[in-house]
Amino acid sequence: MCELLGMSANVPTDICFSFTGLMQRGGGTGPHKDGWGIAFYEGCGLRIFHDPAPSAQSRIAQLIAEYPIKSRIVISHIRQANVGKVCLENTHPFDRELWGRKWCYAHNGQLDPEIFNWPLQHYFPVGSTDSEYAFCWLLDQIRNTFPTPPQDYATLTGFIHRCCETLRSLGVFNLLLSESTQLFTYCTTRLCWITRQSPFGEAQLSDCDVAVNFEAVTTPNDIVTVIATDPLTNNETWSKLETGEMVVFVDGKVARRLHTTP
Amino acid sequence: MCELLGMSANVPTDICFSFTGLMQRGGGTGPHKDGWGIAFYEGCGLRIFHDPAPSAQSRIAQLIAEYPIKSRIVISHIRQANVGKVCLENTHPFDRELWGRKWCYAHNGQLDPEIFNWPLQHYFPVGSTDSEYAFCWLLDQIRNTFPTPPQDYATLTGFIHRCCETLRSLGVFNLLLSESTQLFTYCTTRLCWITRQSPFGEAQLSDCDVAVNFEAVTTPNDIVTVIATDPLTNNETWSKLETGEMVVFVDGKVARRLHTTP
Repeated sequence: MCELLGMSANVPTDICFSFTGLMQRGGGTGPHKDGWGIAFYEGCGLRIFHDPAPSAQSRIAQLIAEYPIKSRIVISHIRQANVGKVCLENTHPFDRELWGRKWCYAHNGQLDPEIFNWPLQHYFPVGSTDSEYAFCWLLDQIRNTFPTPPQDYATLTGFIHRCCETLRSLGVFNLLLSESTQLFTYCTTRLCWITRQSPFGEAQLSDCDVAVNFEAVTTPNDIVTVIATDPLTNNETWSKLETGEMVVFVDGKVARRLHTTP
Repeated sequence: MCELLGMSANVPTDICFSFTGLMQRGGGTGPHKDGWGIAFYEGCGLRIFHDPAPSAQSRIAQLIAEYPIKSRIVISHIRQANVGKVCLENTHPFDRELWGRKWCYAHNGQLDPEIFNWPLQHYFPVGSTDSEYAFCWLLDQIRNTFPTPPQDYATLTGFIHRCCETLRSLGVFNLLLSESTQLFTYCTTRLCWITRQSPFGEAQLSDCDVAVNFEAVTTPNDIVTVIATDPLTNNETWSKLETGEMVVFVDGKVARRLHTTP
């Protein structure tokens, strides 16, 4: 399996602290040594750093942990390969353009190989993972149903949630997805989040001996939510998503929340 | 205007030497301070580093100049903005997926604003540059004419050349483009290349006091072509593309060459 890390914030915020914890799990404290990637939205622009090398030893990961790139939406992934060999084209996050927006996606889990029989129309995978195939299928559905951007994000969210439920029928589908304004998260097995806002306190990473006092690096109006496969800190309370639940974050806050329909 | 840098090689090769020269022109020896980007193909995978900050002062550019990422096709661009503000979404190279391949594109020049009236169908720009708009138009043409990958790259090359001639009718269009196996280059005003192969010699950068003895870092079978807006070295002879000429490089060698039809 893999580890996901996401961030949604109401002001451009760096993710150096959380990424420092996550990168240890890529060949250090965790077995996720088969590459990693991190995507930063800056306005409607998107930059992604990809590296098929283990994050714990990666010179590029070291740069990301030290160099504060400020963003309001971040999606990151460290990989432990199950489907698809270890190579650049199989490294998350994946991105495609729809509506003149860059969509970015990372998946944790594994889907039945049946996914590879689902027809694709507009978007096709470059690599060989079930994850990228599912992304292409998902974007195809969105493009077919919403050829232009919807006025109403609630309708779009409901549609994406139903697509995720369909994907979940094939196995484990934990998701981070964005089109530059919304951060969609969906859970099958493991996904949790924490929202940090004033009064800020100190947080201690679980994976290495690093702590940060957020009060020293924020303003009283900052709202920052971090989403991860498992809690990254050991002195804070993280909320867990339920199976089949979608939570959409905008500006660091929960904008919409949809539960599975039994 | 801007500066382009490309590479085609028959073995995975790093571009640290040439990039060290180019990055000086981004706010150092040249005025191209409005961001930069570099794209590396590794197999069919593509990773792009984008930075809206000047390359001469960029921490990420410093990493790229020092950290040898080995690739057989590289496309890089440093920007002096004319159309579109300085921001991440206006930073080259741009990329889109077609046929399950990542296409990557960088443009030097300026096109008549008439370009923004040309209809788009499949691909839409994220930013506001004439360059990205022209890329979307170009990929639309390719996708409409070749819905699946052609068996014959000569036919595809002829088609892309005609599209470039059409774009040149709107102004200056110097191009680097790839779909992971071919490096298409097209010239309106300034583009030149040098092919290095055995016996290798020493090269001296024009933009800073750096020299490299390629014999020490290559094998006798290596063939490496570097393409740039202007020669990057001052002790080698670079070949110039003519106006309206397309040269396609594969494995470091000239695979096809098309001249303008008067």
